[in-house]
Amino acid sequence: MSILVVGSVGLDNVQTPAGSRTRTLGGACTYFATAASLYDRVHIVAVVGSDFPQEHLDFLRRRNVDLCGLQIVEGKTFFWAGRYDEDLDTCQTLDTQLNVFADFHPLIPDELRATEYVFLANIDPDLQIEVLQQMRAPKLTALDSMNYWITSKRESLTRALTMVDVVLLNQKEALQFAGESNLLSAARRILGLGPKALIVKKGEHGSICFMRGKGLGDSLFLAPAYPLEHVVDPTGAGDTFAAGFMGYLARDGGLSAAALRRAVVHGTAVASFTVEDFSVDRLRTLSLQDIQARYDELRYLTYFEALTSAECGGFGEPI
Amino acid sequence: MSILVVGSVGLDNVQTPAGSRTRTLGGACTYFATAASLYDRVHIVAVVGSDFPQEHLDFLRRRNVDLCGLQIVEGKTFFWAGRYDEDLDTCQTLDTQLNVFADFHPLIPDELRATEYVFLANIDPDLQIEVLQQMRAPKLTALDSMNYWITSKRESLTRALTMVDVVLLNQKEALQFAGESNLLSAARRILGLGPKALIVKKGEHGSICFMRGKGLGDSLFLAPAYPLEHVVDPTGAGDTFAAGFMGYLARDGGLSAAALRRAVVHGTAVASFTVEDFSVDRLRTLSLQDIQARYDELRYLTYFEALTSAECGGFGEPI
Repeated sequence: MSILVVGSVGLDNVQTPAGSRTRTLGGACTYFATAASLYDRVHIVAVVGSDFPQEHLDFLRRRNVDLCGLQIVEGKTFFWAGRYDEDLDTCQTLDTQLNVFADFHPLIPDELRATEYVFLANIDPDLQIEVLQQMRAPKLTALDSMNYWITSKRESLTRALTMVDVVLLNQKEALQFAGESNLLSAARRILGLGPKALIVKKGEHGSICFMRGKGLGDSLFLAPAYPLEHVVDPTGAGDTFAAGFMGYLARDGGLSAAALRRAVVHGTAVASFTVEDFSVDRLRTLSLQDIQARYDELRYLTYFEALTSAECGGFGEPI
Repeated sequence: MSILVVGSVGLDNVQTPAGSRTRTLGGACTYFATAASLYDRVHIVAVVGSDFPQEHLDFLRRRNVDLCGLQIVEGKTFFWAGRYDEDLDTCQTLDTQLNVFADFHPLIPDELRATEYVFLANIDPDLQIEVLQQMRAPKLTALDSMNYWITSKRESLTRALTMVDVVLLNQKEALQFAGESNLLSAARRILGLGPKALIVKKGEHGSICFMRGKGLGDSLFLAPAYPLEHVVDPTGAGDTFAAGFMGYLARDGGLSAAALRRAVVHGTAVASFTVEDFSVDRLRTLSLQDIQARYDELRYLTYFEALTSAECGGFGEPI
């Protein structure tokens, strides 16, 4: 199996309390592809300008990332600049230049339209819908979004949510989209639109996976974050969380509630590595064994009393 | 075994988005004793004024709470008034009247000085030290504190921390006391003062139990909060978390890392009931079976891949 991802590939200026980087490799699609390629072959559908450094293309190709869906067009690459505050809680966007991204329409090469796992990174929900309309019966589709689209393209985003299996949002976004102050109420509203699962990311506080099942096993999963003493740059944490999640599922092949739970913890582990360095730098040397080691640590860190195998029998059904 | 608790018994005016209550039963010691009495006999050391309603004394006595250490003195009972904001995140103190609490010195009746489990609720750290100095070799001591004492009685609080086994603080307090922006760094600093464990409470985001062991099992435990759709009044959540924690340990008798982990989840479960109603009202009808049911739910809600019994062998050693 393989994974198709649509989203931004760009160049970032980033400032954090740990330092800063100029015109470093960035973009949700880049982060996702770099991390997910540890699990499986990844196909990128995106656009860059003629100024995009060849070394970044070479880097992605070396990682088993297929670039046949990457459009390279005359002009400048998508650019973003941001500054994180002292406790890394909030990020102020200093500049966004869409450049060649402004006229981007995702065209899925015919040979990729049967890809089974599809991740729609945070882009205009109308483009996310365009992608879904080109795919042939994917096994699992997931999307990410952001406050900008919740405000400016609410109708399109709502429609996109009805078309995917898994929705990933951060806590603020989930509450904002649902117009609720309680997360359980918000989740019920979002799942009511059709997706089988909603994963709410809470940064250092972990994540919650809401599913449509009625049982304790297939309705809710509470995952902690991996505790870190030194965070260098939070950029890309959400995208690589999605990469660990989708990557694990593509590699595992299952779609049970139990598989989703394990996939969430893989996402947690991958994201925890991402934020240890700027850009995708920490991912350059990361291995699946490293991820598995943190996954196993998280098994210890959350243990208090095991379920018996009889008790967790119900988790094995497809969601 | 039994549990001794020192702290405030008072009357509260509380406003939350769900409603308000006037001169309702409150105080950290009250919340703790009401909840912990579900697990074991509780001895209160506190003070109330001559205006304290007899019905509250009768209520506590009916719950197997021993009031022989409760001083009833001429004057008015401790009074607190507070208002929670819309999303229950912050609480504004509208009024605090120490009244008879201003001259309180805890005098531990001789027959209680050998009590094995001692909880020092959030009071002046000098009074917490006075209590510890009167006790004879308790098996487990724990204390709670707050930002007020961190600022105004830093030296006394630091000394108190060196004298107890377990410290309970919320995330803001732990960071503030340690002068750190990262929780792991803060925990290392606090554990460096002597306590065997630090439990950092994060409200709706759960809690983290830091221990002094070197292994994965006996150094860190990540616990979620029990997810609630309707929170009525957060007052007393921290005190009853401590009650579930101490109550479980007193009843269980063990002090291993594994026991501490289970105790944290009991605290989590008890606190989740407390906030479902005003004052101690939800606790009035609560049973140990109800708590155990939520504890079991939390086993399901956090499950993703069990440890084998060989893997969790190391958790059984005393902390």
